[in-house]
Amino acid sequence: MAFVKKSMTGMKDILPKEMELREYLLGIIQSSYKSYGFNRIETPALEDISNLTGGQGGDNEKLIFKILKRGEKLNLETAKKENDLVDAGLRYDLTVPLARYYANNSDKLISPFKSLQIGSVWRAERPQKGRFRQFTQCDIDILGDATNAAEIELILATTGVLSKLCPKNKFTLRINDRNILSALVKASGIEEKDMSAVFIILDKLDKIGIEGVKKELTQLGIDKEKVENYIAIINKLESSTDNKFKLEFIRENTKEILPDDCIDGLLTIINVVEECKTADFNIIFDASLVRGMGYYTGTIFEVSMEGFSGSVAGGGRYDKVIGKFSSKEVPACGFSIGFERIVTILMEENFEPEKEPVKKAYLYEKGLNDSAFIDILHKAKEDRKKGLTVLVTAMNKNKKFQKEQLSLQGYTEFTEVYREELKK
Amino acid sequence: MAFVKKSMTGMKDILPKEMELREYLLGIIQSSYKSYGFNRIETPALEDISNLTGGQGGDNEKLIFKILKRGEKLNLETAKKENDLVDAGLRYDLTVPLARYYANNSDKLISPFKSLQIGSVWRAERPQKGRFRQFTQCDIDILGDATNAAEIELILATTGVLSKLCPKNKFTLRINDRNILSALVKASGIEEKDMSAVFIILDKLDKIGIEGVKKELTQLGIDKEKVENYIAIINKLESSTDNKFKLEFIRENTKEILPDDCIDGLLTIINVVEECKTADFNIIFDASLVRGMGYYTGTIFEVSMEGFSGSVAGGGRYDKVIGKFSSKEVPACGFSIGFERIVTILMEENFEPEKEPVKKAYLYEKGLNDSAFIDILHKAKEDRKKGLTVLVTAMNKNKKFQKEQLSLQGYTEFTEVYREELKK
Repeated sequence: MAFVKKSMTGMKDILPKEMELREYLLGIIQSSYKSYGFNRIETPALEDISNLTGGQGGDNEKLIFKILKRGEKLNLETAKKENDLVDAGLRYDLTVPLARYYANNSDKLISPFKSLQIGSVWRAERPQKGRFRQFTQCDIDILGDATNAAEIELILATTGVLSKLCPKNKFTLRINDRNILSALVKASGIEEKDMSAVFIILDKLDKIGIEGVKKELTQLGIDKEKVENYIAIINKLESSTDNKFKLEFIRENTKEILPDDCIDGLLTIINVVEECKTADFNIIFDASLVRGMGYYTGTIFEVSMEGFSGSVAGGGRYDKVIGKFSSKEVPACGFSIGFERIVTILMEENFEPEKEPVKKAYLYEKGLNDSAFIDILHKAKEDRKKGLTVLVTAMNKNKKFQKEQLSLQGYTEFTEVYREELKK
Repeated sequence: MAFVKKSMTGMKDILPKEMELREYLLGIIQSSYKSYGFNRIETPALEDISNLTGGQGGDNEKLIFKILKRGEKLNLETAKKENDLVDAGLRYDLTVPLARYYANNSDKLISPFKSLQIGSVWRAERPQKGRFRQFTQCDIDILGDATNAAEIELILATTGVLSKLCPKNKFTLRINDRNILSALVKASGIEEKDMSAVFIILDKLDKIGIEGVKKELTQLGIDKEKVENYIAIINKLESSTDNKFKLEFIRENTKEILPDDCIDGLLTIINVVEECKTADFNIIFDASLVRGMGYYTGTIFEVSMEGFSGSVAGGGRYDKVIGKFSSKEVPACGFSIGFERIVTILMEENFEPEKEPVKKAYLYEKGLNDSAFIDILHKAKEDRKKGLTVLVTAMNKNKKFQKEQLSLQGYTEFTEVYREELKK
């Protein structure tokens, strides 16, 4: 077989310039989240295949990179279906592995546990611009706190980080609750069995408009009257920008369906976040926010950034996932930053990370004797002690071009060293 | 299928305490290597399967985690052998991917290119204590420099880093050259075809002793006289600790086999490193150093640390690997730190990373009203502005135990907040 020069489809080789930006951003994310007491942890890239295909990941479960069994466990002749051949897969998110991690290690972790994860995830999506098959996620999660304090802290911390990462970009946080989504469907008289299909249609509101939603709901075979009820509610909610009005409207229209503390909870979250936020953003209750993952059970939220489609961060409450891994259910809530989105946005803006240390290059003529070379290395050592970045490199034939390239990399000081006989 | 709580065999969930140590060490590695002008880069975890099975990785090629083909490309019925089912694998090291990266991106990289990689690699080794199937490597490489300046810089930079990572542990760098290994075999009259087998036996010298090597060489079917020749040379070299003596002895005994500049090159490397090293270590020429990877073509080196078996870092010159991926051969040399070894050594020593920022915890009684909670969050915000790490968390029933646990995590300041009516 021939060697292949290109990287795998949809996965990228990261060049030094992008890498510098990524590291700068990761530095901000880490130090900022740590100042809230989040603890960095790590799980393996591979998970048991049954953890990844248990219905927690929604559509992502169709996109798993699966790992072939090894040695005696692999039996090509008796294998009838794909899953006879594999025993593991690459994680498609950081939430399912975190739930497993918590179930596996809870005796060694403080409660509630505040986790910070930064790591790669893999999804075999159809390749397209700006979509990668390996990408980095930055997640914070609070495990073991059933109260709104978890949502509030996740939102304050994440919006604070986003404003540091993209100081020039305005953003908006939209919030909803899965229980409101269901309650509104029920209040319209639509049957439970159609619920998921309704959510999938509602999720497209931005793209197809209210008329489009109405049309697709009718095509689904739902009674005209029930569709009218539902559309009337959504219309009313879409017509207002007043969070309190919208939530009280829902309270009125879902009596005996939705417990009061769901509405009160959202009001508290919105109120406290407005009071305590360190970043300049709007928090908007959005009854049409759905989010795809199968595991959400309560509050859900998403951040969109001006001028960019899709979301840059998202999360929510998933109180039932840890219970799948152990006998004990543990309330959980998380917020994930779409790191690659942020990188793409900043690369497009030609964002320059903060100043690095002074960069100095020693260019030496090839063929120096040992003692002349030792002399350069000693000087470089002294410079590094002073905090400089020091490159020692042979002079290329085209010295002018070499220095231009180095200047582009931020080198500002150049010292040229020639062989004894050529010394100027 | 049931959910599995444990992490994959041989892969570990990393707890906060170890994570803190890892990050501290990675910080040292990064800043130290960057001060030499090494550029951080990244390649995907997955490589085309043909890149991983092309004979570069020695025994590691038997340990690849392979990725099942997806969609139409996967045909279970027509698949006859394992490789009909897979199109990719997880990288087993960072060197082969780097060679591909350089071939793929050389037009965008400065020459010579100094690369720094920190990343996970995967090997399906038999599980045993201290061996992991996913582990981190930290590699620096210089691509495009055929001179000894590359070896010298790699050695100075890596030994400098090691002395910062493990300031209390004495270490030794052993160095050899693949060309010396072959020349000594040839000089003894042993045939070319037996060369690899001889290296594998010589590599066991530490374990089986010189008599063991002699016995196994004889068992290989090599003429008694030739074995005697070879053993005599090795014995002579093992009897001395004087690098210059050993290298001149080899020069004498390999005339017309080994080019002079190989010996001169090693003498230069040893001399310059001795003169310029920032760490306190010995550099020893070791004619029995072999190193397993298939791709080495010249100098090879390895670092061992007092009190620990095996090596903590290793590397060498591999001038022929990049040429496999492009029409152009590019000289290359690298040094890799076995990060997990370092972590294990320091964990065993109960090493404590440098002081972190002051850690303060607000413990609040559950059921605070919004304004009391807002008040705490404002205080926490102010503390964070001053650089503190601030945890806001609900008081557990067993407050004493909770504070003890937090103290173990480094929290030194505690503020307790009670509901209005209970305020003390």
